[in-house]
Amino acid sequence: MKATLIHGGSDIRVEEVPDPVLSEPTDAVVRVLLSCICGSDLWGYRRPGPRDGGPARIGHEFLGVVEEVGAEVTTVRPGDVVIAPFTWSDGTCPHCLAGVHTSCVHGGIWGNGTDGGQGEAVRVPWADGTLVPAPVTPDDERLPALLTLSDVMGTGHHAALAAGVRPGSHVAVIGDGAVGLCGVLAAHRLGAERIVLLGRHDDRIAIGRRFGATDVVPERGDDAVTRVKELTDGLGIPHVMECVGMQSSWDTAVAIARPGGTVGYVGVPNGLESGLPIRAMFSDNIAVRGGVAPVRAYLPELLADVLDGTIDPSPVFDLELSLDDAPEGYAAMDERRAIKAMLRL
Amino acid sequence: MKATLIHGGSDIRVEEVPDPVLSEPTDAVVRVLLSCICGSDLWGYRRPGPRDGGPARIGHEFLGVVEEVGAEVTTVRPGDVVIAPFTWSDGTCPHCLAGVHTSCVHGGIWGNGTDGGQGEAVRVPWADGTLVPAPVTPDDERLPALLTLSDVMGTGHHAALAAGVRPGSHVAVIGDGAVGLCGVLAAHRLGAERIVLLGRHDDRIAIGRRFGATDVVPERGDDAVTRVKELTDGLGIPHVMECVGMQSSWDTAVAIARPGGTVGYVGVPNGLESGLPIRAMFSDNIAVRGGVAPVRAYLPELLADVLDGTIDPSPVFDLELSLDDAPEGYAAMDERRAIKAMLRL
Repeated sequence: MKATLIHGGSDIRVEEVPDPVLSEPTDAVVRVLLSCICGSDLWGYRRPGPRDGGPARIGHEFLGVVEEVGAEVTTVRPGDVVIAPFTWSDGTCPHCLAGVHTSCVHGGIWGNGTDGGQGEAVRVPWADGTLVPAPVTPDDERLPALLTLSDVMGTGHHAALAAGVRPGSHVAVIGDGAVGLCGVLAAHRLGAERIVLLGRHDDRIAIGRRFGATDVVPERGDDAVTRVKELTDGLGIPHVMECVGMQSSWDTAVAIARPGGTVGYVGVPNGLESGLPIRAMFSDNIAVRGGVAPVRAYLPELLADVLDGTIDPSPVFDLELSLDDAPEGYAAMDERRAIKAMLRL
Repeated sequence: MKATLIHGGSDIRVEEVPDPVLSEPTDAVVRVLLSCICGSDLWGYRRPGPRDGGPARIGHEFLGVVEEVGAEVTTVRPGDVVIAPFTWSDGTCPHCLAGVHTSCVHGGIWGNGTDGGQGEAVRVPWADGTLVPAPVTPDDERLPALLTLSDVMGTGHHAALAAGVRPGSHVAVIGDGAVGLCGVLAAHRLGAERIVLLGRHDDRIAIGRRFGATDVVPERGDDAVTRVKELTDGLGIPHVMECVGMQSSWDTAVAIARPGGTVGYVGVPNGLESGLPIRAMFSDNIAVRGGVAPVRAYLPELLADVLDGTIDPSPVFDLELSLDDAPEGYAAMDERRAIKAMLRL
C-alpha cells in the first residue's frame, strides 16, 4: 500500500509500505477514506536536513472503514465508518475513565514508528477504546466535517472548555489557524455571547465570522492588547483561548485576560523562550488550563452535533488533494496558501 | 510614633515616624494591636546592601482598633477592632465585585511608600472596602488567629480553592511554611479526605498534622515525586497546592499532579529560572490557577469560622515579640528559628 513518509525538511514522499496486519487481539485495521495535514506536522517539515532517526510515517488525523478486527474487539465491525482520534487509548485505564485519554497508560500518537494517518491503511491499537463508529456511509458528504473531530474541532472544543466558556461568556480566541477557527465555533456552540478573534488573514477571518466571531482584532503584540482593552472597558477578557503556542501569543493571551480570568490553551508549546509570563499571571490571578486535547472524550457529543447539522467545521479544509499529492499539501500549508489540506483516498 | 523600616539587607530598624493622619474622606487611621512578619518580607532582608530608594516602611499584615475615620466612611467606627487584608481595595470596582480585590483599580499593598503594618498606626485608604470589623474586644484571646486572616490563612484558602479542593479531595501541599500549613488547614476545612504535606521540619510537620495532614513526604525533588506516586498507585494527586514559589517546588508540583489535575499556587514566583514546566503541563493537562490571594474576599467567611472555633490557625505564630524587637523577628525567621513571628504592640 501507499503511505506518506517524512524524510526531512521540505521532504515529504508518498511511498510503498507493507500493508498493516492485526498483531494484537485488541487491534483493528482501518482503510483510510480521508486524512489531513496538521499544523504540527509542519514542524518536522520546517526543520532543515534529513530527519533524525530516518524516514517515518506521518499524519495523525484520519477516518476510514474498518477492514478487519482482532478477536477481542467488540465495539466496531468490518464495514463500519470510524473516526480515529489523534491519539489511541485503551478506554479503561484511570486516566481514560477520568476523560484524559491523552494520558492513557497504553496510549500513543500515530506516526513516529507506528502507522501514520496519511496512508491507505492503519493498524489501530486498542480499537475499542480508540475508534468511534459514525452511522454514515463511505460516500456521506459530511465526512470532511467528521474528519475535523479527529483533531482540530475537538481541540478547539478543549480550548473552550479549558477557558471555562459558558453561555453568555465573553471570549477571545488567539490564532486564526484551523484550531483557532474551530475554537470560535466551539465557543459559539457553548453559548458564548461575545467572541473576539485575534487574527489577520482575510480568508480565515471570513470563516471565523461565519463560525461565530463577533469582533476581529488584526493587531499584534501591544497594539492587540490595547485594542482588546478598548473593547472591554479596560477590563480584559475573562475567557481567553490560546490556539498558537508561541511566546508572542502567550504574552498576548495573558495580557488581555481579565484579572481572575482563564487562558485555555491547546497550542503546542513551541519556542516559549521566556516561558509563561508567570509574574503577570500571579499579579492578576490569571489561570492557565489546557494541554493536548483528549478529543476521544468529546467525540460522541461533537459527532451528534455534526450529524444533526448543529455544527459544520468542514470549511477549515480549503484544499483537497489525493494521497499522491500530499507533498503539495505540506507546501501549500507551509507557504500559507492553504489553511488546512485534506487528503481524499 | 514608632514603626519598622527596612534599610537594607539584614538591616531592620524601629524608628520614630510621623503619626498618620486622614488625608481622604475615605481613609481611616488604625492603631495596630498585632502585626507579623511575612516570608516575603525576608526577600528585601536577604538582599545584601542598602535598599534601593532608601529606607521604607514594611509589614503588610495587621489588625487593630479604628482611631479615626474620614467623612465618607460608613462601615467601621472608632473603637472597632478591624482586620486589614494585606492589600487595600475600594470594594466597588469591577475587579472587587468579581472577588479579585487584589486587582482593584484603586488598590495597593502596605509599605513601600505607604504606611507599613509593622508600626503603631496605619493610614488605611478606602477603609470601607478594605477593613473588616471583628466583633471582639482588643484583649480577645482569638486575636492571633484573627491576624492570620490578614494574609496567611486567606492565602492558604486561596491555594485550596485555586487547586479545586472539594469534600473528599485528595490533596498535596508543597511547603511547610506558615502559608503551607494554613493551606493544610484550609484543605481540611473544605473537606479534603487525604492531605499529603511535603515538608521536612519536625516542628512544622507537627502543626501540619494537627491542621489535618494525613501523610507527610519529607523527601525532595525526584525522590518526593517517587514517594507521592507510590502513595497514589502511580496516578499522582489531582489537587496540588504550591505554597513556596521556587523552581524546585514548581517542578515537583507539576510532576506529582495527576493528569487533568490542577496546581493551585500562591507562592510568590521567586527565581523560576526555567519557568513553569510547560511541556509537562501540556502533555498531561495540568492546570495552573492562583496568584496573589484576594484575602478580602474570604475574610467574612473565615472570620466566622475563627470566631466559632471551627478553625484556629494561630499555631503558625511560634514567636511573639514587642514592636521594638521586630529586628529579632526577622533574624529568627531568616535563620529558620521561627515559623512566623508576631509583634504585639
